[in-house]
Amino acid sequence: MQWRRFSPEADSLKVYGYWRSSASWRVRWALALKNIPFDYIPVNLLKGEHKSPEHLKRNPMGLVPVLEIGEGHFLSESMAILEWVEEVYLLKGPALFPGTPLERAHVRSLCEIINSDTAPLQAPRAQKKYSSEPEKQNEWARDFISQGLRAFDVASRPLRKKFCVYDEVSAADIFLVPQIYNAIRYGIDVAKDFPELHRIYQECLKTSACLVASPETQSDAHPPSA
Amino acid sequence: MQWRRFSPEADSLKVYGYWRSSASWRVRWALALKNIPFDYIPVNLLKGEHKSPEHLKRNPMGLVPVLEIGEGHFLSESMAILEWVEEVYLLKGPALFPGTPLERAHVRSLCEIINSDTAPLQAPRAQKKYSSEPEKQNEWARDFISQGLRAFDVASRPLRKKFCVYDEVSAADIFLVPQIYNAIRYGIDVAKDFPELHRIYQECLKTSACLVASPETQSDAHPPSA
Repeated sequence: MQWRRFSPEADSLKVYGYWRSSASWRVRWALALKNIPFDYIPVNLLKGEHKSPEHLKRNPMGLVPVLEIGEGHFLSESMAILEWVEEVYLLKGPALFPGTPLERAHVRSLCEIINSDTAPLQAPRAQKKYSSEPEKQNEWARDFISQGLRAFDVASRPLRKKFCVYDEVSAADIFLVPQIYNAIRYGIDVAKDFPELHRIYQECLKTSACLVASPETQSDAHPPSA
Repeated sequence: MQWRRFSPEADSLKVYGYWRSSASWRVRWALALKNIPFDYIPVNLLKGEHKSPEHLKRNPMGLVPVLEIGEGHFLSESMAILEWVEEVYLLKGPALFPGTPLERAHVRSLCEIINSDTAPLQAPRAQKKYSSEPEKQNEWARDFISQGLRAFDVASRPLRKKFCVYDEVSAADIFLVPQIYNAIRYGIDVAKDFPELHRIYQECLKTSACLVASPETQSDAHPPSA
């Protein structure tokens, strides 16, 4: 592992991810928003590739996404990756965490409602330990997603405009939208239960950075029946 | 809610927390490390005070800790709070996220192994939905804590010295130590299974900022039998 200085001009970035992983979408989106090129390398979760010795070397937690920086340095955890992208590419593209320290804290707090209080609980590894029955797994996921979106809906109210925080996409949208995509997959009527969050979801899907990072446009995307 | 500029000199801080909440310990510790005064206001989780209308106004997710900044502005999510503390009190006390962007990303990645991949899964709200039987709840918690500490142990190896990242306390220690405290509570033999992490735990407990923030020294600490 090299701890030398990273050169945004000379070094290349690789994202190891999975098309339908919401945390992978976040990282692809953040890089696309700042117009930073990267190679996308699929890790097939259905085939267990995230538990392979090769992937565990990239991330001992056995999760995606992982960002490879230069040659052989691996960075995991989407929140840490977004903060790194913001620090290294500060002047490139819009800020992921914009505004005053208090506004930035608000953005990060919204991110963590998804990152810490929602996504890990609805993730397959929790579902599968809870039950082997698909219907129980789905109910488990729906419950935690609903709790998270309910809190996000209230917490985002003060600064919500076109997007989660004022009129520009921020990290808060980057965390919200993939979670809503999952909510819809699990059968939550987001348009009815969380109309303002659903409106933001639709706004984001009109932006090119969100779209090119979205699950269906990835090289490893399965047909919906898979 | 006021979005005016916060004045570290004029405005006071309040931490709403619970003595044994690991995320509350993180925030108390970060403030103590930077020698920032605050009032500590206990929220009794056993009495359900975190679900009261009063607390839900502070944090719609119904969790602790919450940091009150000035009068009536509430900030939740320990990671967002630590980042805010670092930004606002940058030159006061040691850095919570020290070093180069890559080293800072490493610190944040370690934090998120606990914050996102471990603590939410072992938390009471997941345990209780999993089972009403205490022994099953404990097994659930032990499993997710062990997975998280195993990953943390490997991921922290490259820069580990006296503390998680070199020879100074950083946010990585602030997230690790309360999780180890929980691991011990749930009966994991941390000294045997994770000797290096246990050594860091003991090193941290020798520092005054960690100690004054620790569960047992809080005004709402129960006797161990409670």
